[in-house]
Amino acid sequence: MKKLALLICLGTFSNLLYGQQNVSFREGAIVSPQVNEDCSVTFRVKAPYAESVSVHGDWAAGNGVGQMALDADSVWTYTTPALPSEMYTYRIVIDGVAGLDPTNPFTKRDVGFVSSVFFVSGGCADYYQVHDVPHGSVSTVWYPSEQLGMSRRMSIYTPPMYGQEKERAYPVLYLLHGSGGDENAWVELGNVARIMDNLIAEGKAEPMIVVMPNGNPGKQAAPGETSENLSYKPALTNLLPGSYKNGRYEMAFPEIVGFVDRNYRTIPDKAHRALAGLSMGGFHTLYIAANYPGWFDYMGLFSAGLDMTNVDTAQPAYQNLDGKLKILQHEGYKLFWIAIGNEDFLYKANRDFLKRLDSLEFGYEYHESARGHLWANWRQYLLQFAPRLFK
Amino acid sequence: MKKLALLICLGTFSNLLYGQQNVSFREGAIVSPQVNEDCSVTFRVKAPYAESVSVHGDWAAGNGVGQMALDADSVWTYTTPALPSEMYTYRIVIDGVAGLDPTNPFTKRDVGFVSSVFFVSGGCADYYQVHDVPHGSVSTVWYPSEQLGMSRRMSIYTPPMYGQEKERAYPVLYLLHGSGGDENAWVELGNVARIMDNLIAEGKAEPMIVVMPNGNPGKQAAPGETSENLSYKPALTNLLPGSYKNGRYEMAFPEIVGFVDRNYRTIPDKAHRALAGLSMGGFHTLYIAANYPGWFDYMGLFSAGLDMTNVDTAQPAYQNLDGKLKILQHEGYKLFWIAIGNEDFLYKANRDFLKRLDSLEFGYEYHESARGHLWANWRQYLLQFAPRLFK
Repeated sequence: MKKLALLICLGTFSNLLYGQQNVSFREGAIVSPQVNEDCSVTFRVKAPYAESVSVHGDWAAGNGVGQMALDADSVWTYTTPALPSEMYTYRIVIDGVAGLDPTNPFTKRDVGFVSSVFFVSGGCADYYQVHDVPHGSVSTVWYPSEQLGMSRRMSIYTPPMYGQEKERAYPVLYLLHGSGGDENAWVELGNVARIMDNLIAEGKAEPMIVVMPNGNPGKQAAPGETSENLSYKPALTNLLPGSYKNGRYEMAFPEIVGFVDRNYRTIPDKAHRALAGLSMGGFHTLYIAANYPGWFDYMGLFSAGLDMTNVDTAQPAYQNLDGKLKILQHEGYKLFWIAIGNEDFLYKANRDFLKRLDSLEFGYEYHESARGHLWANWRQYLLQFAPRLFK
Repeated sequence: MKKLALLICLGTFSNLLYGQQNVSFREGAIVSPQVNEDCSVTFRVKAPYAESVSVHGDWAAGNGVGQMALDADSVWTYTTPALPSEMYTYRIVIDGVAGLDPTNPFTKRDVGFVSSVFFVSGGCADYYQVHDVPHGSVSTVWYPSEQLGMSRRMSIYTPPMYGQEKERAYPVLYLLHGSGGDENAWVELGNVARIMDNLIAEGKAEPMIVVMPNGNPGKQAAPGETSENLSYKPALTNLLPGSYKNGRYEMAFPEIVGFVDRNYRTIPDKAHRALAGLSMGGFHTLYIAANYPGWFDYMGLFSAGLDMTNVDTAQPAYQNLDGKLKILQHEGYKLFWIAIGNEDFLYKANRDFLKRLDSLEFGYEYHESARGHLWANWRQYLLQFAPRLFK
């Protein structure tokens, strides 16, 4: 009876019908992934009838691909080389069908891909994991946008002391996602709450509020969180009506700042506001900052979408960028931080933009990392950028 | 170049290496699941090298199992009978390996199982989806537990007007998860925010705060959200040290109520507090209510774990239940609501408990539904219970 209860308690009766190997919390289950002491990682999948099984992940070694080998127990196995500390996502491809690692219950969604996830500790990934330090809160919050004509959703991190020190006001970092992302992206893939909790606990970053809005102005919220429900599939922003490079999001941005200043204990001035974004969010950061000089003392462009060839300069938001940058320069700011990976498809666009800034004598700091257009870089950029703020 | 950008913008470069059929947001992709006009549902999976493909879900028809048939394009297909309105989870089993539906980007985790998800509208599932109504907020919040000796995480829903009507105070529903669940379970699988938003918008439920604590007293938070990080795998509560039926959670419960009353605009009295839980959370509800008479006017036991044969009645929390129920009866309450499915493995235990209440002349309302120990029932119970509160 006890065993029966154990089985049925799973909640979904028909789970009983699933393959036993998928029950990661039962004894005797296959262990996968297994992060080894030397920082290599072993994957194991039981697939007795498969002809070919491989693992595809976002690490650099072997381009992230590993062909798995079959052992005598019908378990396919592959071990990576030692991997640098990071959060990694991966999928298992069995006879041409890509899916999760059946024994790993932890997943992340990136645009339309759901992947399995693991951490290699001992470096930057230590900041992406939970430690016994005071924890902040993450909330999903809806704000009314008059300019975009709808309620819109954002994620807001408040630091650990926000709930206790109730008279204290905080600076705010506005943190923007890329094409295909949404208000969940920095929380889920960026591990923002862990990064901020850990940096604050070590005294490396000032306690701050982090606001992560939805950057698709034609949409209210992430896929599954709007009244379209599951018929709105995750998609790149250029496929979302009314969302792509039309300047509406950038021009409406003060609504978000106003809502946050009205509803949270912020220090509502330029010296206590930062704005940063990845990819499309870096493009947004540039144009929000350019159109609203005097609003932000700190700006961060992470692998920014600075390919200007397809920007409609007839849009008010995008008109006369050089002139707007001159005004921004005149207003003054403390940090304009640009980071890009040397394998990023936007590398040349970013280097060209630096020349443009040089010609304007517009001050910036430039950080060049390895690798490409990856969440690994964006987490690491945040880890470098956040400690620079509000000091 | 534009196409290259489109591909690379996905964020994870190695996603390019995955099977094309998994890219649900690209044109020409396979559509699965497809909810048909007659409420049947069609699943399609491209698996050219498979020998056997089936779908396993939590609907009743055919016990939730469908053998898929191969068509000329290497696509396996199966169509269910017409399904009642609900949120359904399912997995695809290809040659014995269970996984997600490759073309469905929407997933839910239940204990250690990650499944694909869809809705059949036209009934109760309309409450589980997002509509154009005012939306409340959901926050993850950490509270200090002196009695359990740790910071612990909970999820808190605040109703849509909470942010605007800043002088108004609200009643609170404390909503508890089952064995294997955590503070995310009611949010993710229970769709609490949508249910409450929709009931409040229709005027069917009073605006209320819903507090969803973690019911495993040996743990701080859900798997992946503690300092054990991914080494703490989802598990049934009886496998979590210090968590199973030891009375510690029940006795420490006033800490949660105190934290909520101090940090939220609540109406801090019995008439404005409700307590309900599913399965193990129903057991918790019974014993919290019994040990703290005068705290809650409304109690709900959803498929409650009322098998008393393995309860250690030497524990203070579990001593003298009949005597405690007499006191609870004397203190008075407005609703003691018990619901169970007639196929639930806990059906007999619940019916036996009703007899015990009858012998005590302890008043209750009893609701018997179809089916078993399922989230479908727990969502529907909440849909019936929440409108009864605070009126």
